[in-house]
This record gives sequence, structure tokens and C-alpha cells, in this order.
Amino acid sequence: MASKNISRAVIRRLPRYYRYLSELMENNIVRISSKELSERMHVTASQIRQDFNNFGGFGQQGYGYNVEFLYTEIGKVLGLERTHNVIIIGAGNVGRAIANYPDFKKRGFVFTAIFDSNPSLEGIKIGECVVQSMDNLERFVSENDVEIAALTIPKCAAREVAAGLVSLGVKAMWNFAPTDLNLPGDVLVENVHLAESLMRLSYRIKELEE
Amino acid sequence: MASKNISRAVIRRLPRYYRYLSELMENNIVRISSKELSERMHVTASQIRQDFNNFGGFGQQGYGYNVEFLYTEIGKVLGLERTHNVIIIGAGNVGRAIANYPDFKKRGFVFTAIFDSNPSLEGIKIGECVVQSMDNLERFVSENDVEIAALTIPKCAAREVAAGLVSLGVKAMWNFAPTDLNLPGDVLVENVHLAESLMRLSYRIKELEE
Repeated sequence: MASKNISRAVIRRLPRYYRYLSELMENNIVRISSKELSERMHVTASQIRQDFNNFGGFGQQGYGYNVEFLYTEIGKVLGLERTHNVIIIGAGNVGRAIANYPDFKKRGFVFTAIFDSNPSLEGIKIGECVVQSMDNLERFVSENDVEIAALTIPKCAAREVAAGLVSLGVKAMWNFAPTDLNLPGDVLVENVHLAESLMRLSYRIKELEE
Repeated sequence: MASKNISRAVIRRLPRYYRYLSELMENNIVRISSKELSERMHVTASQIRQDFNNFGGFGQQGYGYNVEFLYTEIGKVLGLERTHNVIIIGAGNVGRAIANYPDFKKRGFVFTAIFDSNPSLEGIKIGECVVQSMDNLERFVSENDVEIAALTIPKCAAREVAAGLVSLGVKAMWNFAPTDLNLPGDVLVENVHLAESLMRLSYRIKELEE
């Protein structure tokens, strides 16, 4: 399946389609037309067809889409047909939140270890992991398959820790620290910058007031 | 200042400019050219000029930008020249994380109350707030200026709570629940869908493998 050269906007929408389809399945909806899907998702039907055409179209439009088939196919496009091992660096509130989040496991993301530099947190159980010392990180990464590192640590530590992980061979970072990591170009970084999200909301409030 | 009809892509980048400028100020950098800024931010200089031209350009390009002036002006565009009162619904890990996050206060977001439906959390201090019963929510919102509600509650409760907040007059939601809230069109919703972010990362991993 050709998934190269897909625009970032399409990639941004794919997980949303996936979430909607998951909700449709929960509601036992077997088939949906692009029109119905578009009404639920507040995007145009032509947008949906255009997006899906990047991946071969996912089935006949005239009869609507088979929800489960579409869900499975988009899951494959998103790489969710297999599990991904994730380690969490930072056992603060954000680290705990993601370790305890049931939806990630359902999608195949398996949290295999949590590390923290604070000795008083060592040994605490969070989700299905026990917090380990940062001293164990190097050995853990070299002995286990670690695909993604979630960085839930302060900005001041994030770049150094990320660079260390890259040198250990970790190729994908899910970064919650409010800074850019400046890693080599072949390392994937997905940022969750909460302050930026809140500022966008503030912008839109201001815009309404004008 | 005309800030209407600005594209969502520009709005998406503005907080990032703001964050970079804040870092430049921390490093005592007084002036920066669009070329230098573009290299740091990995966007083209022409993109930066184009973005800034939506807001009048923010000063002469030939001499570079005055960092503090640019920071202040973008802050004004983002509505950060005044404070915003935020309540948090849900005192779980995500609610705690945002209540304790120092950067929000620095940007003028003031968390004025936290509510949770779990009686065992009532009275616990989180950040500068004490967790209150959901039974207090209606009175609190009617007696206080609440501009933004952060929804850090499970999906099953999110829509009902959001609809209730709207009926109490809250006009902006910062939604962490993994669902769309389906609120009236005049209510602003900024979503933080963590699972979608992680799925985008998974997509990019898969893309690299192909």
C-alpha cells in the first residue's frame, strides 16, 4: 500500500477517522456512507473520499463503507496491526497519566518500563510498570526492544535525555517537554506541547471578542 | 490589529514562535533576523515573513526583529496580555499535571478551581486549588468568572459535563477526553487527543519502514 508522500494534513486526520470508526463499531454500526461519516465528523464527504483515495479508497462509495473493514484498513495504514513497545521517561503526573491510559494498550502501545531520576519514586508501581532508576536506562534499552520513548520530563532535561536515547538506538520520541529536541533528521519526534494548545484556545477567544 | 481570517496553519504556528522568542529572551538575545529565526525553527524565512505579515509584519526585516517587541506583539495576538481563568474538571493524573504545570501561569492562565466526582479526592490540594465536589460546580461557575474549562475526565462523562458547562455560560473547552464534544457552534473547543498523537507517530514509524 502506497503511503509515501501523503500530506501531513491527511496524516493528522487519519487517527480521527480511526477513532470515529471505533465509536461506530462500539455502536454496532456495520455500514456508513461518506455522507453520514462526513456529517458526524464535520468534514465534507469529498474531503473524506479524497483522503481515502490516498490509500486506494477503502471500498465502494455507492454502497457506503464497511465500518469494520475501514477500521482495520486505516489501522494498518497507521501501523497499528502490530504492537509498539514504549518506555516512559519521567514518572510525574504526565508520565503516570499516559501509563494508566487504557486506550493506548487497546491500540497496541505497550508501556514496558518507566524511569525517573528521583530516587524516592523508584519501586512505585504505575500502570503495569515499576519505576526504575535512570541508571538502569542504558541497560534496559540495550537488552529490550524499545521503539518509542515518551519524554514526560522537564524542558531542562529533555534534550540531553533524548540525545542519550538516540545514541542507544531509540528512533522515535513522543515528546511532552515544552521544547524542540533538535535530534538527527532520521529520528521521529511527535510533540505534545500543551502550552501551545492552550495558547491557540486563547487566540480563538480573543478572535471572537474582536 | 486585524486578526480575522487568519488560516489555522498560521494560528498553529504562532504559539511556537512565541515559545521560541521566550527561549531567545531567556538567552538574552535582543535581535534576530528572520533567517536566524528560520534556521532555529526549521521553517523557511519566507514562511516566517508571510506569517508575520498577517499581523502587520512586526517591524523591519532589514535590521532583524527586536525579540522582546516581537514576543510582546505575538503575545497580544494570542490574547496573552491579560489573564484567563481556567477550571479543571477531573482531578486524575492529567488534571493534576496541568494544575501543576508552571508554564501556564507564566502565560497568564490561572487555575481557579478543580472539581472531581470522586468524593475521596475532595479537599486534596493540587497546585493552588483544593479539589471540590462536582456538586459545587454550578454555584462556582455562576459566582466566578470562568473563561475556560479543562476537561480531564473520561470519554463517557465528557459530553454531558461539557453540555452542562455550556448551559452555565462557559464558552471555551480545553478537552482531553478522547471524543468530540458536539457543542453549539459558538463554543470554542481545543482538543488534546493524546491517542491520536501517538497514532501519528506510529504512522510515521511505519512509513519509514516501507
